[in-house]
Amino acid sequence: MYILLTYDVSTVTKAGEKRLRRVARICMDYGQRVQNSVFECKVNPAQLVEFRGKLLSIIDTATDSVRIYHLGKNWEQKVEHHGKNDDYNIDAPLIL
Amino acid sequence: MYILLTYDVSTVTKAGEKRLRRVARICMDYGQRVQNSVFECKVNPAQLVEFRGKLLSIIDTATDSVRIYHLGKNWEQKVEHHGKNDDYNIDAPLIL
Repeated sequence: MYILLTYDVSTVTKAGEKRLRRVARICMDYGQRVQNSVFECKVNPAQLVEFRGKLLSIIDTATDSVRIYHLGKNWEQKVEHHGKNDDYNIDAPLIL
Repeated sequence: MYILLTYDVSTVTKAGEKRLRRVARICMDYGQRVQNSVFECKVNPAQLVEFRGKLLSIIDTATDSVRIYHLGKNWEQKVEHHGKNDDYNIDAPLIL
C-alpha cells in the first residue's frame, strides 16, 4: 500500500533537533522524501505497523505530530508537483 | 473536492522568508492548516485554479516546491494523526 507521511517536530530544544533527525532517518528507510517533512512510502501492513511504532517511540506527542494519509490506487495520477523536484518514481528500478 | 497541499519554501534569504509567509497566508484562505506546511483544503475546480495560480505566482520554482494531492472520497477515514493536534473537522459548522 502507498502512504503519505508528513510530520512536524518541534526543534525548540536540542532534544527536538535530535528527534527531527531520527524521524527523518527512519522515514528514509521506508520511503522517498519529496519535501522536507513529506515522504511517500510503499509499505505492506506489517511494515506500516513497524514504521508507525518506530516513529511513535521517538516523537514527543505533546509538541510533535505525525500524519499518515493512506493513498488510494492510481494515487500517482492524483499528485501535482510544482517547483523544485527531488522525487523519483517509487516503482522505478533502482540502478546501482 | 478535497486536496492536501504541502509546500517547501527556501528561507535562506529574506525574500524566501517573505514568500513563506505569503504562501501560508494564501493556504489559510483555502483550507485548514494541519501541520506547519501541510493544509487540507475543500475547493471546487475554479477555486483550485485560482489557488494554484496564486501559489505559483509567489514561489521560486528553482528553490521552492508545492505538491497537491487530490484526496479521494472518504479520505477522512484514511488519515491517521498522532501527536499534537491542531486540526478541526473541515465540514463542521464554524461558530463565530
